[in-house]
Amino acid sequence: MTYLSFHADKPLDFVAIGRLCVDLNANEINRPMEETVTFTKYVGGSPANITIGMSRLGKRCAFVGKVSDDQMGRFIVQYLERNGISTSNVVTDRTGAVTGLAFTEIKSPTDCSILMYRDHAADLNLQPGEVREELIAQAKMLLISGTALAKSPSREAVFQALHYAKKYGVVIAFDIDYRPYTWTSAEETAVYYNLAAEKCDVIIGTREEFDIMERFEDNQAHLDRITADKWFDHSAQIVIIKHGKEGSIAYARDGSEHRARSFPANVVKTFGAGDAYAAGFLYGMLQGWTIGKSMEHGSAAACIVISSHSCSDAMPTAEQVQRFIEQSKREEVK
Amino acid sequence: MTYLSFHADKPLDFVAIGRLCVDLNANEINRPMEETVTFTKYVGGSPANITIGMSRLGKRCAFVGKVSDDQMGRFIVQYLERNGISTSNVVTDRTGAVTGLAFTEIKSPTDCSILMYRDHAADLNLQPGEVREELIAQAKMLLISGTALAKSPSREAVFQALHYAKKYGVVIAFDIDYRPYTWTSAEETAVYYNLAAEKCDVIIGTREEFDIMERFEDNQAHLDRITADKWFDHSAQIVIIKHGKEGSIAYARDGSEHRARSFPANVVKTFGAGDAYAAGFLYGMLQGWTIGKSMEHGSAAACIVISSHSCSDAMPTAEQVQRFIEQSKREEVK
Amino acid sequence: MTYLSFHADKPLDFVAIGRLCVDLNANEINRPMEETVTFTKYVGGSPANITIGMSRLGKRCAFVGKVSDDQMGRFIVQYLERNGISTSNVVTDRTGAVTGLAFTEIKSPTDCSILMYRDHAADLNLQPGEVREELIAQAKMLLISGTALAKSPSREAVFQALHYAKKYGVVIAFDIDYRPYTWTSAEETAVYYNLAAEKCDVIIGTREEFDIMERFEDNQAHLDRITADKWFDHSAQIVIIKHGKEGSIAYARDGSEHRARSFPANVVKTFGAGDAYAAGFLYGMLQGWTIGKSMEHGSAAACIVISSHSCSDAMPTAEQVQRFIEQSKREEVK
Amino acid sequence: MTYLSFHADKPLDFVAIGRLCVDLNANEINRPMEETVTFTKYVGGSPANITIGMSRLGKRCAFVGKVSDDQMGRFIVQYLERNGISTSNVVTDRTGAVTGLAFTEIKSPTDCSILMYRDHAADLNLQPGEVREELIAQAKMLLISGTALAKSPSREAVFQALHYAKKYGVVIAFDIDYRPYTWTSAEETAVYYNLAAEKCDVIIGTREEFDIMERFEDNQAHLDRITADKWFDHSAQIVIIKHGKEGSIAYARDGSEHRARSFPANVVKTFGAGDAYAAGFLYGMLQGWTIGKSMEHGSAAACIVISSHSCSDAMPTAEQVQRFIEQSKREEVK
Repeated sequence: MTYLSFHADKPLDFVAIGRLCVDLNANEINRPMEETVTFTKYVGGSPANITIGMSRLGKRCAFVGKVSDDQMGRFIVQYLERNGISTSNVVTDRTGAVTGLAFTEIKSPTDCSILMYRDHAADLNLQPGEVREELIAQAKMLLISGTALAKSPSREAVFQALHYAKKYGVVIAFDIDYRPYTWTSAEETAVYYNLAAEKCDVIIGTREEFDIMERFEDNQAHLDRITADKWFDHSAQIVIIKHGKEGSIAYARDGSEHRARSFPANVVKTFGAGDAYAAGFLYGMLQGWTIGKSMEHGSAAACIVISSHSCSDAMPTAEQVQRFIEQSKREEVK
Repeated sequence: MTYLSFHADKPLDFVAIGRLCVDLNANEINRPMEETVTFTKYVGGSPANITIGMSRLGKRCAFVGKVSDDQMGRFIVQYLERNGISTSNVVTDRTGAVTGLAFTEIKSPTDCSILMYRDHAADLNLQPGEVREELIAQAKMLLISGTALAKSPSREAVFQALHYAKKYGVVIAFDIDYRPYTWTSAEETAVYYNLAAEKCDVIIGTREEFDIMERFEDNQAHLDRITADKWFDHSAQIVIIKHGKEGSIAYARDGSEHRARSFPANVVKTFGAGDAYAAGFLYGMLQGWTIGKSMEHGSAAACIVISSHSCSDAMPTAEQVQRFIEQSKREEVK
Repeated sequence: MTYLSFHADKPLDFVAIGRLCVDLNANEINRPMEETVTFTKYVGGSPANITIGMSRLGKRCAFVGKVSDDQMGRFIVQYLERNGISTSNVVTDRTGAVTGLAFTEIKSPTDCSILMYRDHAADLNLQPGEVREELIAQAKMLLISGTALAKSPSREAVFQALHYAKKYGVVIAFDIDYRPYTWTSAEETAVYYNLAAEKCDVIIGTREEFDIMERFEDNQAHLDRITADKWFDHSAQIVIIKHGKEGSIAYARDGSEHRARSFPANVVKTFGAGDAYAAGFLYGMLQGWTIGKSMEHGSAAACIVISSHSCSDAMPTAEQVQRFIEQSKREEVK
Repeated sequence: MTYLSFHADKPLDFVAIGRLCVDLNANEINRPMEETVTFTKYVGGSPANITIGMSRLGKRCAFVGKVSDDQMGRFIVQYLERNGISTSNVVTDRTGAVTGLAFTEIKSPTDCSILMYRDHAADLNLQPGEVREELIAQAKMLLISGTALAKSPSREAVFQALHYAKKYGVVIAFDIDYRPYTWTSAEETAVYYNLAAEKCDVIIGTREEFDIMERFEDNQAHLDRITADKWFDHSAQIVIIKHGKEGSIAYARDGSEHRARSFPANVVKTFGAGDAYAAGFLYGMLQGWTIGKSMEHGSAAACIVISSHSCSDAMPTAEQVQRFIEQSKREEVK
């Protein structure tokens, strides 16, 4: 069954709006950052990673965002372009804002943390009037990411993009991507996450992220089914709730449930798993695959990324994912 | 035909959320404020005025808002209570915020202006968690006012109130009440006005106010019909567009149009006309009157208020309005 | 003995820098402000009051300050000009700032309070580059007031004025005028009050105000003599410590002490006493009077002001003060 | 002749107050930062560098500052302690502030730039009440650095430290270290730089930095002698004006002038030259050397640092400096 219907004749497959930042990944791993001496620079930010992933998988992509007017901002734009992503709607900030930074610390494969620099971040300065209506109109799918809702005017820019997407029948996917910094309060978070989610066709998040959205709801038992059904009263077609290593569950508007397990991995760090999963899954949707096959594709992409040092740079091609799935199955047979 | 259906068994007729402030009206009129020497103090703010009007008309009312922890804040609470309005959900700010002020200047009956003090205003500090779900649940009608959307956290408190109103089947009226101060940009205004209006049953504003909401739309000719139809795609049952002295037009979801003229008035100042109109019209809706009769009631209330020195304090009773309408008709016959 | 030497040939006697605001005095006195209905508008702010007082006493005065670009700001400028004070260096703010307000509440002659509006106040926006060097150069005496030190850029404007005054041999008087609002912390207050006081010839404050300046000092016993001697190590010639009804003590650099008592008064409210005292005392200094005679003049002016409804508007002429002193002495004899 | 007299019996030679940050130096040099892939982490900030330099030269040092409550902050504290610098007055911020960052870009030995992250920097949060009086009291010399004056409350903390230094006869050195970011305006900069410099015994800056301080002065020809003489009217004993490759000139209160040339260097980058110079010169003063010998020592230290990849980590020992000077002289002879 097809849950999402895409306009076949649109020139762009995928456009994302939101955070563009720089990851500075510690080269010396398995130690606290106090003892880290050198860092390697990558493009980062959840929607950036997903878009890079989608482009690697072969889709025609564009990004709507804002970068600082400095070397970091130019590095981001150049990297996106080298990866075949249109940056015609990546605006340069003129207010002296900086690029958000994420220093990663990998104490062990399961003990990872991030030190964020998000004060005066350029991406949060995106204005609603800077979102180009004709670009959104040309896309089959729009991805919004929760961090872009954390602050004005980026928050309004996202709602503006949602407005255009609705107007032109663009399928909307929402990656909750909740990060506590930047938000003023848990209540503020719940209000805007709900206003945005009401308008989306696909909603993807962890159980903990959905709990944050349900701050004012009655779902004390944190039941996934209750979570999903709420959104089917609005625009949602598919709601995916991720449970880490336990795998994920997709609920569809027709009442069906679809479960996917994680692949066994040689984990370097946990960062980037969610982004790779989202890219892989949404790619499957665009290909017209079943929910189950798309979820498997997402899980495999996630597994590949967490076995590598970077997030964005490690996003796999469709062939890599396919090969990984086949290899995993062969090994399982053994 | 009945456009709005109210829950008959609710203990409250009307609850409003938003601005509570103090008007300081120049006693010496028909001169610039530089030459004004004394001022008289009144409770003000559009939703406050409407609620006072509704209470004078005999309805059971409550207010959801925030006041400063000083003499001005206590004056407001005492005045609301003296007018029979429940203040159980009027919270006292503890951050040192002040009561918003509006100094009025009446150079002539048609040349009036307001000098606003809105920095660090207590009413804009209302938190979403301070809106009491059980209070909203008990009301037949909720009124929201645009100025409360101008800033966080008051903005989120309004969306929270809308969420509760939807949950309990409370009819929602939206008085656009656009004031340029406080808002950061025209784009921001349009985004939040639209997000709120999507959820409302009755939307009331001037032609200019609807234009502001249509910043990202195609309605270059400013046609009222196009304006109204947009909202019938969402929740609206009735859309009223006010044209000043030319009267107002109400559009209903069934396609009907209803026009009301202004009554001839002995104008002292123009302030408060819109608030009195909204109170009068929404009173008629709660009474089960036709749109036409309700509009006439609103226009008469407006006419009474602009013939007086104050806004809130001049709100008429139902008998006063009735008498005014009858008298106007008798004089017309002459 | 002469403690202060003024340049005889300067065209201006007195220039003050700092706060220009509006007082809204309750017309209904001896009751809480919640029950006050009407207010009368006056120019206010300690340095404004002192300058108006000095002009009434017959001195050639100018003001360095900033007013809002609205009716309140224009009212202030017009009032100063009507009182013969040069406003050539009163700048109009263009950032949308408002005039600071002080609503006075007079519950009883000894129980008075003020409700302040100081957010986004125009006077605190005065830039150092807006202080005109040639104006300061032309004055015999410069008065600075502590409230102008509370925030940037007004704080820097005061230091700039001090720099010019030093450069041109202008006698500097410092009215501490401590008001807790606006200041970020008690420590910040102490730091800037001390930096400013180091450069002043005359320092006037209450015992409590000097205590605030001595936050980082060793004067646990709050001894006036220790307080005064500290400043004689810097620029001070005269230090006056006020003890309310107990009168005031002036310490001079030569080691002398001068005490002044208060006159018995028919007190309406306590506001304005300090401003009238400062105007009266500094007038005496400019006249070449002894410290004792100048203090008596200040005390008499203070007594006249607290017997009236306003502060600025009640500032007496030299004749009124003289008459008041003579009358008091006659009555004492009886 | 001895220009500065130090208290011989104090347990600390040198204490500095101000900026503590992290330098991220591009490992790939001679290219724009857009093409830089990896960075190496060092402790940075002018007063931190000078203190590290002073400690390497063998002096007993302490630091007064504030660091972020994260891995970066802990890295700084650990590095200072490893270098023998007392961190008993290095306070940990609890407001969520971050460590300031300086990404260096070395396009060529003469085309270097810095990309700063100074928003919400922990070092600028140092409170005046956090400066420990007994620590300042124990030092022979206090160094203040201009960047710490850029913002409250760090600005007040510096004035508080100056107050304590004056109280206990601590010699005060001022490294102007002007950085345009963080400052609100050029006028604000001039005001506070002057207020601080008035209290200092040694003032060190480039010609451009002194120009900034003279914004409100008459020195259109930018004459060093006029610059220096201004400060001899206050507390200064020595004023050093640096002219880059042209060398530097020291003016002393007795009217003498002392010139030092730069050593020829194999320049990697220009960063850190000023800090090494200041450390070297002030070390000479503490040793009781002549101005000329101290300047030579400073110039040699500067030359060593600019031939290395880092600033702080490259600070030389006294033996290294001595060897460098001797070697330079031998080569010159050839």
